[in-house]
Amino acid sequence: MKVHAMWDSYPELKQDLADVLSLIDSRIHVRNKAVEERIKEMVYSGGKLLRPAFTLLCSNIGPTYKKEDAIAVSAAIECLHLATLIHDDVIDEASHRRGVRTIHADEGNKIAIYAGDYLFSVCFTILANHATSLSDLEFNARGMEKILSGELEQLNSRYQFNVSIKDYLTRIAGKTAQLFAISFYSGAVLSQSSRRVTMISRNIGHNIGMAFQIKDDILDYRSDFSALGKPVMSDIRQGIYNLPLIYVLQNKPSVFHDLLAKGEAMTDHDLEEVMNLVDHYHGLEKAEQLAEKYTDKAIKQLKKLPDGEYKSIIQEVMATLLVRSM
Amino acid sequence: MKVHAMWDSYPELKQDLADVLSLIDSRIHVRNKAVEERIKEMVYSGGKLLRPAFTLLCSNIGPTYKKEDAIAVSAAIECLHLATLIHDDVIDEASHRRGVRTIHADEGNKIAIYAGDYLFSVCFTILANHATSLSDLEFNARGMEKILSGELEQLNSRYQFNVSIKDYLTRIAGKTAQLFAISFYSGAVLSQSSRRVTMISRNIGHNIGMAFQIKDDILDYRSDFSALGKPVMSDIRQGIYNLPLIYVLQNKPSVFHDLLAKGEAMTDHDLEEVMNLVDHYHGLEKAEQLAEKYTDKAIKQLKKLPDGEYKSIIQEVMATLLVRSM
Repeated sequence: MKVHAMWDSYPELKQDLADVLSLIDSRIHVRNKAVEERIKEMVYSGGKLLRPAFTLLCSNIGPTYKKEDAIAVSAAIECLHLATLIHDDVIDEASHRRGVRTIHADEGNKIAIYAGDYLFSVCFTILANHATSLSDLEFNARGMEKILSGELEQLNSRYQFNVSIKDYLTRIAGKTAQLFAISFYSGAVLSQSSRRVTMISRNIGHNIGMAFQIKDDILDYRSDFSALGKPVMSDIRQGIYNLPLIYVLQNKPSVFHDLLAKGEAMTDHDLEEVMNLVDHYHGLEKAEQLAEKYTDKAIKQLKKLPDGEYKSIIQEVMATLLVRSM
Repeated sequence: MKVHAMWDSYPELKQDLADVLSLIDSRIHVRNKAVEERIKEMVYSGGKLLRPAFTLLCSNIGPTYKKEDAIAVSAAIECLHLATLIHDDVIDEASHRRGVRTIHADEGNKIAIYAGDYLFSVCFTILANHATSLSDLEFNARGMEKILSGELEQLNSRYQFNVSIKDYLTRIAGKTAQLFAISFYSGAVLSQSSRRVTMISRNIGHNIGMAFQIKDDILDYRSDFSALGKPVMSDIRQGIYNLPLIYVLQNKPSVFHDLLAKGEAMTDHDLEEVMNLVDHYHGLEKAEQLAEKYTDKAIKQLKKLPDGEYKSIIQEVMATLLVRSM
């Protein structure tokens, strides 16, 4: 199973996504075969492939449908995503991702850094061999900086009890929403949509990305506390505070300070207490509400796009991804 | 002093190199100002700027001279070089480069990885905003893989006493010569040289890069043994063997095995002994001879290029860089 089962109901899209993975696969040539194998495993590790899927779907918005181009740009976007994941795992010292041991954990920092660099270069070289110019696709220095600096912001704001909602939103706008925006935007550009439609598409991508990341951060609290390698636990220990916690920190700071100040020394019991307090003071509920606001915006904007099968699929995918969980 | 003094005799080129640095500087916008400052420091850290200089010089080979394009492509190449240096410092756990503390040492792995990623993206986005297509400039997956996999090969061949000359040459062809080849090639392409001239230029770059790296590896042995952070010492401890040592390992393996097998546990005395043995068994001399072979090839090919001031400057630069030191 190479393509995630969530696409089973859309056989054509599923086939295109399989072609995206094949294209990436065909571009990966590393003399060190063990490393090549690990990079390919990462490509086929069963992620949802949301970003390439959105690009493929949006390449049906405008009057021109260029399948080959859409697959190439989707592949480049997925490579960029995978590159940042590999480097994130080095930075977060993560041992597992999607249930599989990370390249960082198995092969060490050094190989993981180069594997990420290599996927960056595959991203750009796929785009380079491609008819549409990169600047048309908004692969510009500002956009890339947004993607990369999301992580830097995160490092910078560690252990700040007074981190604001705005800081959090800026962080996830870079870390997640920017690449979703590029996915939508690129598809719309490829299909030669009008400027207006292209900008709406981009905003939809941004809003879906924002909602998706907030939901993801909420899910970290909801999943079984004993789940191995639960990311929210290590995030909180490392001083990275996500939306539900930030909400309650703003209103009930004193309850948390002593606990959070322990940092890496926080026990599992401490963490469980933090998580219960977040729930008790309605942090999760407020975060859900904000996710919903972004989802609503996206739905409203989606209505403005030309009708088509792509549009109903985006709606269905949003319903699956962003369904209210409480 | 922003541009290295080696360019003082060529005021026009020096000014262009200053413009290359300004262009890079103008593209670096990181919200985290401390990180931005460190990246800019790296840009202005006084490297020789050989790669951009060669691109600028080669942009005079053909009939068309496009200064602005040449400066942009040179800037992109320098960014790529700096990105790999920053990541190399993480991988090598290097505390200093060019006498200055590394980003890795001061700010940690995490920020250094992102700073490198950011410079990668600046490289590609400068190229993207540029008229000439990336594929014309040979920024392709194979070429990039060569650059990146040089380091992977190095990791892979650690502590191999039977590492061959060929392995070493493959490694430095990727690590160093490939980017020199791209520098020459890109300049020639920009100036609309014929295919023949472009390919000769590329080979010159390759051969200069090979000679340059071999000379650099020899210099590590020649510099004062007590010099702080002497790279060859940490390389040998980490099991990375360079040409002079490989030559003697091939002929006198038994003399070295016990010493090298100590790996990270090698004392300074052990290292001094290795270095004396390498000298005694003519490792340095043989390496010099090979460097000279590459230099001679480059000089021979350079003669085939159209005459011009650029050509004499390249010759003079080669004489400075690749002069026989024994």
